[in-house]
Amino acid sequence: MAVGTFEQYKERLLKMKPNIYIGGEVVDRSDPRMEPGMYVMRQTFDCAHDDRYKEFCTATSHLTGETINRFTHIHHSREDLFNKQKMTKLLSHRVGGCIQRCMGIDALNALSVVTYEMDDALGTDFHKRFEKYLAWSQENDIVANCAQTDVKGDRLKRPSDQADPDMYLRVVETREDGIIVRGAKSCNSAAPYVDEIIVTPTRFMGPKDAAYAVSFAIPADWPGVKLAALPGVRHKRKHIDAPINKVGDMESLTIFDDVFIPNDRVFMNGQADPRCTPYAGFLALMFAHFHRHSYTGCKPATSEVIASQAALVAEYNGIAKADHVKGKLAHIIGLAELVYAAGVASAVKAEESPSGTWIPDEILTNAGRKLAGEEIYNENKILADLAGGLIATLPMEADYYQEKDGVGDLLHKYIMRNPEISAENQHRCFRMIEDQMISEFGGAMIVAGLHGGGSPQMEEVAMMSRYDLEELKGIAKYLAGIEKDIPIYDRAYVTPRKILEKFKKQVKVPV
Amino acid sequence: MAVGTFEQYKERLLKMKPNIYIGGEVVDRSDPRMEPGMYVMRQTFDCAHDDRYKEFCTATSHLTGETINRFTHIHHSREDLFNKQKMTKLLSHRVGGCIQRCMGIDALNALSVVTYEMDDALGTDFHKRFEKYLAWSQENDIVANCAQTDVKGDRLKRPSDQADPDMYLRVVETREDGIIVRGAKSCNSAAPYVDEIIVTPTRFMGPKDAAYAVSFAIPADWPGVKLAALPGVRHKRKHIDAPINKVGDMESLTIFDDVFIPNDRVFMNGQADPRCTPYAGFLALMFAHFHRHSYTGCKPATSEVIASQAALVAEYNGIAKADHVKGKLAHIIGLAELVYAAGVASAVKAEESPSGTWIPDEILTNAGRKLAGEEIYNENKILADLAGGLIATLPMEADYYQEKDGVGDLLHKYIMRNPEISAENQHRCFRMIEDQMISEFGGAMIVAGLHGGGSPQMEEVAMMSRYDLEELKGIAKYLAGIEKDIPIYDRAYVTPRKILEKFKKQVKVPV
Amino acid sequence: MAVGTFEQYKERLLKMKPNIYIGGEVVDRSDPRMEPGMYVMRQTFDCAHDDRYKEFCTATSHLTGETINRFTHIHHSREDLFNKQKMTKLLSHRVGGCIQRCMGIDALNALSVVTYEMDDALGTDFHKRFEKYLAWSQENDIVANCAQTDVKGDRLKRPSDQADPDMYLRVVETREDGIIVRGAKSCNSAAPYVDEIIVTPTRFMGPKDAAYAVSFAIPADWPGVKLAALPGVRHKRKHIDAPINKVGDMESLTIFDDVFIPNDRVFMNGQADPRCTPYAGFLALMFAHFHRHSYTGCKPATSEVIASQAALVAEYNGIAKADHVKGKLAHIIGLAELVYAAGVASAVKAEESPSGTWIPDEILTNAGRKLAGEEIYNENKILADLAGGLIATLPMEADYYQEKDGVGDLLHKYIMRNPEISAENQHRCFRMIEDQMISEFGGAMIVAGLHGGGSPQMEEVAMMSRYDLEELKGIAKYLAGIEKDIPIYDRAYVTPRKILEKFKKQVKVPV
Amino acid sequence: MAVGTFEQYKERLLKMKPNIYIGGEVVDRSDPRMEPGMYVMRQTFDCAHDDRYKEFCTATSHLTGETINRFTHIHHSREDLFNKQKMTKLLSHRVGGCIQRCMGIDALNALSVVTYEMDDALGTDFHKRFEKYLAWSQENDIVANCAQTDVKGDRLKRPSDQADPDMYLRVVETREDGIIVRGAKSCNSAAPYVDEIIVTPTRFMGPKDAAYAVSFAIPADWPGVKLAALPGVRHKRKHIDAPINKVGDMESLTIFDDVFIPNDRVFMNGQADPRCTPYAGFLALMFAHFHRHSYTGCKPATSEVIASQAALVAEYNGIAKADHVKGKLAHIIGLAELVYAAGVASAVKAEESPSGTWIPDEILTNAGRKLAGEEIYNENKILADLAGGLIATLPMEADYYQEKDGVGDLLHKYIMRNPEISAENQHRCFRMIEDQMISEFGGAMIVAGLHGGGSPQMEEVAMMSRYDLEELKGIAKYLAGIEKDIPIYDRAYVTPRKILEKFKKQVKVPV
Repeated sequence: MAVGTFEQYKERLLKMKPNIYIGGEVVDRSDPRMEPGMYVMRQTFDCAHDDRYKEFCTATSHLTGETINRFTHIHHSREDLFNKQKMTKLLSHRVGGCIQRCMGIDALNALSVVTYEMDDALGTDFHKRFEKYLAWSQENDIVANCAQTDVKGDRLKRPSDQADPDMYLRVVETREDGIIVRGAKSCNSAAPYVDEIIVTPTRFMGPKDAAYAVSFAIPADWPGVKLAALPGVRHKRKHIDAPINKVGDMESLTIFDDVFIPNDRVFMNGQADPRCTPYAGFLALMFAHFHRHSYTGCKPATSEVIASQAALVAEYNGIAKADHVKGKLAHIIGLAELVYAAGVASAVKAEESPSGTWIPDEILTNAGRKLAGEEIYNENKILADLAGGLIATLPMEADYYQEKDGVGDLLHKYIMRNPEISAENQHRCFRMIEDQMISEFGGAMIVAGLHGGGSPQMEEVAMMSRYDLEELKGIAKYLAGIEKDIPIYDRAYVTPRKILEKFKKQVKVPV
Repeated sequence: MAVGTFEQYKERLLKMKPNIYIGGEVVDRSDPRMEPGMYVMRQTFDCAHDDRYKEFCTATSHLTGETINRFTHIHHSREDLFNKQKMTKLLSHRVGGCIQRCMGIDALNALSVVTYEMDDALGTDFHKRFEKYLAWSQENDIVANCAQTDVKGDRLKRPSDQADPDMYLRVVETREDGIIVRGAKSCNSAAPYVDEIIVTPTRFMGPKDAAYAVSFAIPADWPGVKLAALPGVRHKRKHIDAPINKVGDMESLTIFDDVFIPNDRVFMNGQADPRCTPYAGFLALMFAHFHRHSYTGCKPATSEVIASQAALVAEYNGIAKADHVKGKLAHIIGLAELVYAAGVASAVKAEESPSGTWIPDEILTNAGRKLAGEEIYNENKILADLAGGLIATLPMEADYYQEKDGVGDLLHKYIMRNPEISAENQHRCFRMIEDQMISEFGGAMIVAGLHGGGSPQMEEVAMMSRYDLEELKGIAKYLAGIEKDIPIYDRAYVTPRKILEKFKKQVKVPV
Repeated sequence: MAVGTFEQYKERLLKMKPNIYIGGEVVDRSDPRMEPGMYVMRQTFDCAHDDRYKEFCTATSHLTGETINRFTHIHHSREDLFNKQKMTKLLSHRVGGCIQRCMGIDALNALSVVTYEMDDALGTDFHKRFEKYLAWSQENDIVANCAQTDVKGDRLKRPSDQADPDMYLRVVETREDGIIVRGAKSCNSAAPYVDEIIVTPTRFMGPKDAAYAVSFAIPADWPGVKLAALPGVRHKRKHIDAPINKVGDMESLTIFDDVFIPNDRVFMNGQADPRCTPYAGFLALMFAHFHRHSYTGCKPATSEVIASQAALVAEYNGIAKADHVKGKLAHIIGLAELVYAAGVASAVKAEESPSGTWIPDEILTNAGRKLAGEEIYNENKILADLAGGLIATLPMEADYYQEKDGVGDLLHKYIMRNPEISAENQHRCFRMIEDQMISEFGGAMIVAGLHGGGSPQMEEVAMMSRYDLEELKGIAKYLAGIEKDIPIYDRAYVTPRKILEKFKKQVKVPV
Repeated sequence: MAVGTFEQYKERLLKMKPNIYIGGEVVDRSDPRMEPGMYVMRQTFDCAHDDRYKEFCTATSHLTGETINRFTHIHHSREDLFNKQKMTKLLSHRVGGCIQRCMGIDALNALSVVTYEMDDALGTDFHKRFEKYLAWSQENDIVANCAQTDVKGDRLKRPSDQADPDMYLRVVETREDGIIVRGAKSCNSAAPYVDEIIVTPTRFMGPKDAAYAVSFAIPADWPGVKLAALPGVRHKRKHIDAPINKVGDMESLTIFDDVFIPNDRVFMNGQADPRCTPYAGFLALMFAHFHRHSYTGCKPATSEVIASQAALVAEYNGIAKADHVKGKLAHIIGLAELVYAAGVASAVKAEESPSGTWIPDEILTNAGRKLAGEEIYNENKILADLAGGLIATLPMEADYYQEKDGVGDLLHKYIMRNPEISAENQHRCFRMIEDQMISEFGGAMIVAGLHGGGSPQMEEVAMMSRYDLEELKGIAKYLAGIEKDIPIYDRAYVTPRKILEKFKKQVKVPV
């Protein structure tokens, strides 16, 4: 069985070289600020060995037939998509939000689709390289993230038109044994504590952008890789430790300072072969798509965590029976259900790609992610509303245990609301919500809830570029008497393959 | 094959007695104001014979194995639920909204579940009677609606506490050969042009309300049944007829003025057997539930119709490429997808009841219907926004063909926006939207979009009475450190069967 | 005293020539379909003579010192603006919405500003003509509307670039004694029952659009003026008449089929004097602005009417004490207050123009109108929600008085909810809301609530074109340490005069 | 002139005794964590001496005729209310949000109204005491906050019914020379760095709650006063200091551990004189009301700060011209205008109380505050949306100046978007928004934006308890024909005086 353990993962990390820049220091993975993120990753290992979770947290490798961690699996059926969604949701509950490891599985699945298409159309061997890399990842239960978002410079200019050509990551040199890349990837969550960073393009590339059509995977401490990191931590506690308080992450601006990538880890190279160029946009879309489908698992979980906290604090505050409280809880719960439903229906409508990888329906996935992004601030507002101003003014934890002047006792006396709940538990409840909402990590997580996988604006663009409005208009034309017949409109959309055809035309590659 | 035709249906109607009261007249089904509603019903017959539709518009009877119209079918699988949703959506496209016949199928399915449970627990023979009735319905492709909503009087008082005991329909006498019922059912759509009216309770009934626990089916022109009707019509047209303009309905306050119901058509009678009482609430819930699941088919269709009209008029107005237009279309499209997804996921999570009927998941169904209801006004706002003020000020159709003073030509001259579209088609487009939004029928349809099957407030109540908040709170308790373990929370809810148990306790019937 | 009477107004109308095209007929002002609109206009006469209203419904002419109807008055102080807003609100209550006559006062005020500026800068005599026209209007208490919205053709093309040059109203010939105009004005409310139609441009006109820079006033039955009308009526009633039921309007597509306008009624003519061209946009803006300020009076009234109906029906339905009902009422009430506040604050910040006319603050006025437009559908949703489905299914009025089969009595029996309220009054309440929401006139009024005076999209454009974002950014630059000092930012905006300067530059008229 | 300086204020603070409990320590006002809050207070002194601000930041004392800081002034005219609103807005711009000192002025104004009424009705001398205290406050430019929010225990029980009677602050003993009080006040912003804490009741008190009807003022370091504090700070910076970064606050749970208050500082004492009891609720309302009116100054400022940051970052990101960006900015700007307008209109409708203090209109003030609270999360969402994910993943400040491995240079290279803006300024812009949104202080400020002065739910309650729904219904009754006449409805509401009468009846004090 190829399901790894947290200890193996940690051991690998501790061997890595120090290339993490934090607040003026350069540190390695033994730095205590890594722990909150590693605590999150730990769940993905532990649960794969836990009888209650393993059913959906493991899978059978299509390469080897071995049992593997689902986070390294390629979806080969609707059932796989259901299970990925379920795993994402249930693990997210455990950490009160983002489970962080989905970037890896989403990048692998995207690469499985796109490299196959390249080999098939161009006679390259990217898919073969990829499958070798995948087999190694599965065998070692490798933790990967995905570096997609370039820093972008002037957003109105194409990559090759930027004043500084490095605003998008690119191949600066192709050698016999590999390539040299330069650029920086922003918002690169978890980079300081993953094994591997998988790099994909961030957008469609035009004919002049061939050097930007590049994808590869590399260890996170590889020479030339520099992680300018931002630790996302919650408040330190000494007395009432709790799962919520152990959770955190570390963000990174991941700089590729002329980094050499050996050939067996290169999965696309437009500089050497410009015919790859249209596949850059295709890969960008495919990663975004699989990632947004993961959001139909984690965002419902986030909503449920918030609803759960809101329901608990409403009970402690003694307002659980008020009509407006029920209405607000119902709103969050409804959102969780709808976003989850979008993922389920998206799997029901999924299609098998030529590579054998199953691709969920894009319109449904985007509709779900869009709703989640639009409502994340509102959900937080509801939680703050039901919790009350106390969550923003709660005295510090240590003072609840201050013996001087009886202050600790006074704080416990004055936190009492519900006489059937202990003061400590009432304190725990408010402390949790404070951690969730007022900490730097909490603040960052709300922004991530908006932008992660693409903001609602991006999902709108995705939906409108895929949706077949002309066919839709057929309904109105029929009803108005402009056309005689009505289309059987079970909603049409531009499938990934057609997108690829379109891209090929735009970069004038013979199809 | 037991799939009927529109002609057979119409012939049955024309034989019925005049019991329809409209604007001071008493009319029968030959009144021209019936035509718009019958046009809608016609789709459900014609499409069952149309090769493009018949796959999902017909089904195989579990009673006889014969091919029947799906509108008379009991769902016996997930696939049946998918097909019912699809049928509802695609037929709704054809009429620009409500397909009207779902009330019948939803009432039949609810009765199939509840009468079975009664017979099973109480040793009654309601299910047997029901199956006989069902077989006849299937064989003759009978059109039924459902009379559920009582007039209710003082909403804070129970049925038996009302000043006037007839505010909820009740059994006033049980005879050997049947029962006498009295009361009135409000918002009884399509009653003037259905074959049969199926009556169900509208709410939970307590121990003192036994006489109100009653269900039956009866021809719409049965002695004592009086239909105080409201025709929902669109503007008359003479020159540019179109499907949108043929569509309408007729609402009814259906009065049961001491009506005799023969035993073989009685499916519940709490007056004779008070043990039936808890099943009244159960039947009310089951009908509401199946009906809300139908809404996950028709509301997406309504959204798509609106989006289709909005996209067309935006094209004609020359504003299709504006960002805000795309954003507004994406919003409606997203809603259609999410509500549809709620129905699909609800079918994926459906469970088989002891009767063999499949019941969709209630939380998901309600979450979908709730969103649809909350957004219907907003969708109309978007359509009005993109269409412009013209839809509320368009000169009348006849004036576009007025020869005097060249007025008709002038009107055609001044409606031109897009030189590539004929003046007539531009006129058709605006005329359609005017019909959709400014007519009495259009106004009523928006209200129906809010209230039909229960307003968002009712779905909120349904969700919160089913959802297991205590289990949900387990997540927060774990994260706060109040409890050691976290539930595997793939969302729990109170199933229909548990609801029934609860009702039985409330009316103290031995379970 | 120059305050006219309804009888005088009606007498004038009855003398007018038949030029109204309705549903294939050509009619004059004696047609009964004029009555609902004339009923609305009647309020503006009657109240000016009513002691409870006259304080704010009359004003003192700045031309003659005489007491006049405020609907013909030019605002000469903040107090005038407060009074106009108050008058608009209180009269709108009486008709359950739009008071219809504000177009006239708004057009007069806009002309007073713009003609003055033209005479001052160009040495023309438009203002003198205007003052003569105004004096006559005041003396005779003339009812005017404003024809602004051109049919526009292709919205992406300028007036002079249209395939058909008549898509915007223009001067086709300037003669010694006047001008010939051609074109059509859409959404021209009340045209069939006003004395006078005042014509203003609908947008900024560029250098090539000089012939479109035209403004004038003309009797509504003038030779060549053709009104293609749409009557907005509510349901006929025979038994329970009520104010709500007497109210209606008539819309018009007002066609100018080569109409001769004598010089003393021409207030701008860019064809003869291209220096007028920049004033076209200025006049368009000024009319829109005064009109939107009127909306800060009528929209709060509309909200209050809806809140009033919602509160009454909630009481009759017995749900007035539910939390969610209070919340919904509070929402509508809050909207009414905020939109009204925008108008008040806009008057507080008003400035005197060189003509002596006071101009309210544009940002505030637009912010208020925008909110009102955005929420009108939501307000209707709330009313429908609290009223229940009955408003869309209420049997017809005549059937409540049907003696046959006791149907009338049964309908009265079954409408009872609150035993302390008579059946007739409960019927009246639901009938009123049905009239408000389900009638064609009601449907049109919602659209008018969105689009009248410009949709929220237009107010957004207005706000963003006036608001000084650069100065606003000074706050952020200071806080970020990019700039050393912070502006004293009591919000800056581009005043009407600066707009005029800008327009002059764009059409290259020497300033 | 009695306008103090920051130095005088600081000197007073440094003399105070250490009674602040933070994270296990006990500190005094020299603790560096006080500085961010003191920086905010500094603005209120400096600007009162600044020619650009002094016009509205100073006022003339009605007691002495001397020029004083407006923060110690009692409003004696509409103009005073306009100036207070303007001062609050313009100073809030300087600190990017809450100016913190309004609690003092709002408590003083509330006391001026209520103590006068008590003396007048009961023959007490509270107003005399208060005026002496006020004179001293004005002369010394004293900084005060207001301790209102009790910890409340079980929210469904009255103060005297709580399991622990100290859940609301109360008089435990009345002595000849003063009173002993016990209890704790939550959410007591700025307590650690004010001169004085003014205590007011938090709610209506019933007959049994007389001992809870208490109000007084006391120095913040008075014996027995214990401040359990929560510092609200932003990220430390070393290289690019900026005003945003100097701002912060400190919250406090302020414990009154059997504190003696001398008589001349006691402004209400229901324990000694139960006739005071109804005035407790009145004082609670009056403080809340004046405070919410202050919010009509600071919330528009907060909206403008957010709009300013959003506009700047949109410019830097190169997306300023996108339609959706303009729409989002217009939305925030519109909110700022509407909330400000509510305050202005509320001042226009203000009334003079018997004490001579002017009280703004409550419905308008609450409508404004409610909108602001409802939208604060949405405004933050818009800022996050336009800024992009970078604000949640920005590497730490020190790393931008890290020389090792050229990391600092690389970070400056990769932050470039707009080549016309220096890298440092682009860095400053993102750093500012990160400080605003991701810091603990930022998180707390959003919650404060929701709850400060009362959440939208509280404003809804306030509005609905004041608004005269019965009179409002008169409109609907007239329109429906239920009543013959319509009220002249320029909106009626229950004035503060009537509220007081009501309270008196509820506690059965002879009026």
